[in-house]
Amino acid sequence: MTPRTVFFVSDSTGITAETFGNAILAQFDIEPRRVRMPFIDSEDKAHQVVRQINHTAQQEANRPIVFTTLVDMPVLKVIQQGCKGMLLDMFGTFVRPLEDELGMKSHHRVGRFSDISQNKEYHDRIEAINFSLAHDDGQTHDDLAGADVILVGVSRSGKTPTSLYLAMQHGLKAANYPLIPEDFERKQLPSALLPFRSKIFGLTISPQRLSEIRSERRPGSRYASLDNCRAEVHEAEAMMRRSGIRWLSSTTKSIEEIATTILQEIRPERLSY
Amino acid sequence: MTPRTVFFVSDSTGITAETFGNAILAQFDIEPRRVRMPFIDSEDKAHQVVRQINHTAQQEANRPIVFTTLVDMPVLKVIQQGCKGMLLDMFGTFVRPLEDELGMKSHHRVGRFSDISQNKEYHDRIEAINFSLAHDDGQTHDDLAGADVILVGVSRSGKTPTSLYLAMQHGLKAANYPLIPEDFERKQLPSALLPFRSKIFGLTISPQRLSEIRSERRPGSRYASLDNCRAEVHEAEAMMRRSGIRWLSSTTKSIEEIATTILQEIRPERLSY
Repeated sequence: MTPRTVFFVSDSTGITAETFGNAILAQFDIEPRRVRMPFIDSEDKAHQVVRQINHTAQQEANRPIVFTTLVDMPVLKVIQQGCKGMLLDMFGTFVRPLEDELGMKSHHRVGRFSDISQNKEYHDRIEAINFSLAHDDGQTHDDLAGADVILVGVSRSGKTPTSLYLAMQHGLKAANYPLIPEDFERKQLPSALLPFRSKIFGLTISPQRLSEIRSERRPGSRYASLDNCRAEVHEAEAMMRRSGIRWLSSTTKSIEEIATTILQEIRPERLSY
Repeated sequence: MTPRTVFFVSDSTGITAETFGNAILAQFDIEPRRVRMPFIDSEDKAHQVVRQINHTAQQEANRPIVFTTLVDMPVLKVIQQGCKGMLLDMFGTFVRPLEDELGMKSHHRVGRFSDISQNKEYHDRIEAINFSLAHDDGQTHDDLAGADVILVGVSRSGKTPTSLYLAMQHGLKAANYPLIPEDFERKQLPSALLPFRSKIFGLTISPQRLSEIRSERRPGSRYASLDNCRAEVHEAEAMMRRSGIRWLSSTTKSIEEIATTILQEIRPERLSY
């Protein structure tokens, strides 16, 4: 396949340009070279970007594809006028029709975060990350009333990465507790969790997959054996069913998919939407 | 202000639609109600979406704004034909010109992750999260050779959330180590880190901001006092300068901005671009 380069050009971190650009590129059978160009916040830097893109255009048979989320008009103009790549102006394309619809001008302002230390939403998100870390793997029962979501499931069913994702992406305080043999013997959820049933969500996983994951950590152990995984999963699912909590299987799901489902089911109050 | 509702409609998690849609909305002085509609993967579900959007359109003076990343054409058609909102079709807008440019048809395939358990990139990302958690706050010196990035800085300078973000967003194994009085006395970086200087990155922070952050945790403590914060930051910056490592101030920066800068500076080998 002839080489093709994709540039992501942004005045800020470029995360929006990348998230969106990569989602679109995933619709095609190509494996382009990718170049991230963040913090392009002056006309000088824009000229450098143009030089780099045009240099690539000269070297490769295909013209580069350029995803941009630039909002600063003079900076964007430099790219529009000089760049020999295929320019996909993600903001301009939608901002202009929205200006008409909303009957107002857009800010053309760079970045959500000018001074993060003054931003309440950001502060709460960092707090949520700290909360989720402190409440990882049942480390503490403190302030469970402050949790937005409490995940339960057997060890290695996906609770930790899902909790951290809920905190980082959605600013939710997500605690997680492993279900262990003692819980199965008592045939009920850990007693500290019982008052918070409405925000408990269970994760299960197929015994085969669980055994694979555990074997990476502790190969040949009883912990990782298929027999033991089967027994633990069976007990955990029976308990979740008995407790009337909502749960799903993480076997083939990404943490993004699990998190989205949890939001739909639990609908935490803190969630802005 | 008259109410306005924004819908995010996706066949998958809707994260792309939200990230992009919210970045565009941030360009306007509006505070719309937001409704997330993920997993719209059938014509039936699309009809339900249309009913909900049109119900909102009837109730509010303004027509709803609908960001969609639907790739399944029959599902998208249901929305296009029935929806009384302002439809911003984020994929269609860019996929069609790209089909021409690339000379190929797009997949119109839903989601990056069909079965996540088989996906190497996803597996590595979860491994990176586990690594970063295990190497948080200097918990272990094991396998530092396997780290992509090693963050250092005084306690509460932003190392932990940045490490977790690097792991979650970029799949990087990010360890982090606090700089403590013992290091300042010895006047050098923790010795276990010295062989890995090229992947060490420092975070500093203004003493005032540090004192604020620490005071939330331990109000009135010596740890949080401005005097102590001033001394620690002074020592840490002197050490980073002497060691010749790269560093930045996290005082007014988000973890996204810090992470993006680190990627630009360290350029970890694992990084795909």
